Amino acid sequence: MLNPKYGSISRATVDRLPLYFRTLRLIKSEGSDIVSSEELGRRIGVTPEQIRKDLAGFGAFGKKGVGYHVAELLNNIGVILGIDRRWNIGIVGIGHLGWALANYRNFASMGFHLSALFDQNPALVGQVINGVEVLAVSDMETTIADRNIQIGVITVPAPEAQSVADRMVAAGVHGIWNFAPVRIRVPETVQLVSEDLSVGLTTLSYHLRRQMP
Amino acid sequence: MLNPKYGSISRATVDRLPLYFRTLRLIKSEGSDIVSSEELGRRIGVTPEQIRKDLAGFGAFGKKGVGYHVAELLNNIGVILGIDRRWNIGIVGIGHLGWALANYRNFASMGFHLSALFDQNPALVGQVINGVEVLAVSDMETTIADRNIQIGVITVPAPEAQSVADRMVAAGVHGIWNFAPVRIRVPETVQLVSEDLSVGLTTLSYHLRRQMP
Repeated sequence: MLNPKYGSISRATVDRLPLYFRTLRLIKSEGSDIVSSEELGRRIGVTPEQIRKDLAGFGAFGKKGVGYHVAELLNNIGVILGIDRRWNIGIVGIGHLGWALANYRNFASMGFHLSALFDQNPALVGQVINGVEVLAVSDMETTIADRNIQIGVITVPAPEAQSVADRMVAAGVHGIWNFAPVRIRVPETVQLVSEDLSVGLTTLSYHLRRQMP
Repeated sequence: MLNPKYGSISRATVDRLPLYFRTLRLIKSEGSDIVSSEELGRRIGVTPEQIRKDLAGFGAFGKKGVGYHVAELLNNIGVILGIDRRWNIGIVGIGHLGWALANYRNFASMGFHLSALFDQNPALVGQVINGVEVLAVSDMETTIADRNIQIGVITVPAPEAQSVADRMVAAGVHGIWNFAPVRIRVPETVQLVSEDLSVGLTTLSYHLRRQMP
């Protein structure tokens, strides 16, 4: 049972939820039905106490000396994360990164449906990637409305990112996932997640530095 | 001054450090010399108390009623993250994602030097991306040694990821950044960071779900 009060989960817990989800999905794929807070903590890199606190916060309670039911926990977190429903996404900017994202298999398995691709390069328009045709950027507004695209993904160069975001917002997207290395601004009613690929590399260099002083 | 005991920073704080670094760099680029724990907390999405606790943990103390010196804090976090030194990286698998990473500008600005690119496709070998020539995968071992490559980036399809990792480790890399959607295993002496691009999208869907029940 989900805790109806899960609206009050702390931001730090929310930030860990995708990691919980990913880790639990992996554990499930390995064939485990039950996982202890110790094992989950070890894999995620937080203490078992933190795991118990996080999970209790949205009403998931493990059985003492047994652990958590993996499938149930995965389902609950999926509901909280909103990946129990379908989200239509559109990618603008089919350079290498946009192309790679269009082909990323994990999205579909998490409820994200690739609905449209856009690029301004006439040589790309009409090409089909992962079953989806690349459209001209000039078709963006009507397509976002027609295909009920809720999430726009920005993989254009930095100087173009803000204007693409503005057009997406005007066309009615509710969320933007930005990969352009620039800060973009959106109205408060639109959710924005900006990605910085160097974060993973930085985490790695931190650990290497400990090891190779 | 760095706290010489910063070896004892908690894992949760370490996970937030790249976010601190990224946010502080942005604040600096906006022209601010000083930042308060309130402002930093608002941008990062944690409480001001958490900010003060995190930063005190490695010896950075803001001035009451004033805030933190952005440049100094940025420098200290850079040292802790190990990005005050140069890391040579090699990317194996020049599909769209590998190609995009090879062109990612933020890496160089953080001390990561693109030293080599590898692919098994003869049509790619010899091409130059971002000033670096693509080599055959069979050249991987000697090149990793010759160019002192410490970090290997894996952007090959999932079925090939483990064998590439094994070869990288045997050739002497100290860290692996894995983008293949599969769990790979490395010896304990090698640091591994695995990337899952769906995490950002999941964070977005969480916030959208709150907004569109």
